[in-house]
Amino acid sequence: MLRIGAIEAGGTKFVCGIGNDSGVIEDQISFPTERPEQTLEKVINYFTDKNVAAIGIGSFGPINVDPNSPTYGYVTTTPKPGWANYDFLGTLKQVFDVPFGWDTDVNAAAFGEAKWGAAQGLDSCVYYTIGTGIGVGVYMEGRLVHGLVHPEGGHVLVRRHKEDPFEGICTYHGDCFEGLAAGPAIEKRWHLKGNELPADHPAWDLEAYYIAQSISSTILMLSPKIVILGGGVMHQKQLFPMIRSYVQRNLNGYINTTALLEDINSYIVAPGLGNNAGLCGALALGVEALVRFNESRR
Amino acid sequence: MLRIGAIEAGGTKFVCGIGNDSGVIEDQISFPTERPEQTLEKVINYFTDKNVAAIGIGSFGPINVDPNSPTYGYVTTTPKPGWANYDFLGTLKQVFDVPFGWDTDVNAAAFGEAKWGAAQGLDSCVYYTIGTGIGVGVYMEGRLVHGLVHPEGGHVLVRRHKEDPFEGICTYHGDCFEGLAAGPAIEKRWHLKGNELPADHPAWDLEAYYIAQSISSTILMLSPKIVILGGGVMHQKQLFPMIRSYVQRNLNGYINTTALLEDINSYIVAPGLGNNAGLCGALALGVEALVRFNESRR
Repeated sequence: MLRIGAIEAGGTKFVCGIGNDSGVIEDQISFPTERPEQTLEKVINYFTDKNVAAIGIGSFGPINVDPNSPTYGYVTTTPKPGWANYDFLGTLKQVFDVPFGWDTDVNAAAFGEAKWGAAQGLDSCVYYTIGTGIGVGVYMEGRLVHGLVHPEGGHVLVRRHKEDPFEGICTYHGDCFEGLAAGPAIEKRWHLKGNELPADHPAWDLEAYYIAQSISSTILMLSPKIVILGGGVMHQKQLFPMIRSYVQRNLNGYINTTALLEDINSYIVAPGLGNNAGLCGALALGVEALVRFNESRR
Repeated sequence: MLRIGAIEAGGTKFVCGIGNDSGVIEDQISFPTERPEQTLEKVINYFTDKNVAAIGIGSFGPINVDPNSPTYGYVTTTPKPGWANYDFLGTLKQVFDVPFGWDTDVNAAAFGEAKWGAAQGLDSCVYYTIGTGIGVGVYMEGRLVHGLVHPEGGHVLVRRHKEDPFEGICTYHGDCFEGLAAGPAIEKRWHLKGNELPADHPAWDLEAYYIAQSISSTILMLSPKIVILGGGVMHQKQLFPMIRSYVQRNLNGYINTTALLEDINSYIVAPGLGNNAGLCGALALGVEALVRFNESRR
């Protein structure tokens, strides 16, 4: 059985693991994200002697995912100390002579969900992570979307709820989606962390309102075959029916399809890979890198 | 030289043409859109004896673009008399035994621009038409995006300008993007048609505000390599610099790339194919259909 390495490189913690090409994780470790030198040393130690055939990395960003760029594989403009303009991928390539997959953490998760999770068998999905920040991975027509840079869908502008005076916390945009709805915004608005608020607190209606608004625009703009909601905030399971209801109200029957009108419970869903969505996504990138490498040698 | 047929099927008028596989239109006619029987009769008369090798259709919608659906090729839920649930593609297939390309009018235009226009050589673009309605075509990673149905990006929700009390005209959503910014909304808000308003009328600042807001969210969500703005409203050329300025203000430097920070004049642009964007797009679909047909016979 093939052994593939996977790195879920988050801004707060790193998860490294070994899995196979069926999406099964066989071993994993986790450690806090420090400066890049310290963090990559732990990554390298973990994979040394693990004999992996490829490694997939789903990274916090922004990152450079353009293979034609001289800074492909770099973390670019992050405020995290030491990581801005850091050659993440290149550092690992110097140590491990295997094919590498490299994409954003959320694109990785979208890809993993398409391969083995809630979007299995579908050629499109959008994956949201709603937690410390908000990120969006986009998989359309069987391909991960990059484009000019890569999707940064957490920062779309949303229409403010008329009873919400909160100014937002995004340092770039103030009251963009992330500025109004990420975990730290919930905490700052209500003076309690999300997991300290009761399930029937008005915070969740407001949260569902903003999440649903972003999803509604995503459905109109991209028409994904499924929308997957992960991240710490989405552990609040009461959000799902509220979000679905707001999405239906927003669209108002305009997109005339059973997936949205009748089967929305299986259209807006939690990750099929659960809390492993990120690591499995990185694993999927590793598997894909190996497949492409083998094809290129034929 | 190959002769390819092209049909730009608009809700107001149809344009039929003949072109070659270099994107050159050699002949075209135009007539108002009537009920489907009358309209298709004119289409059929035009192409009879034209000896085309394939036909591409870019159609008003919503339409069914899922090749696995029994109603593939149908116009679906339009209020236009006679067109709802009409088998547009099937009717033509019964008459002409050639490969057909079939997509939305805006996806066709995006594809044509990618093949021969402003997005030539790029693997992604987003094409807006802003006129009687607002439509968005999406071409990402070298493929037109369909997904669940197809993009309907004219109806995304936008944040209302604080000095705009207009209630919007969308029958589904009231003050969605189309409801606030399509041509009929301009006319209803200001009691004059757009082309009767002077270039320095405050209408255009408001129009730029809404268009830029949608584009900003598209850039964040999809990261297209270029954004192309067509349609009757965009004949107001003074809108372009205003839109670019609002987009930069909205993004506030968050997407750190020269395309947006320095070269935005060549990032948000008019169609390279001008007023032929729609017909050339249909032509491009026809060329593609022929290429795929020939590949399938190898």
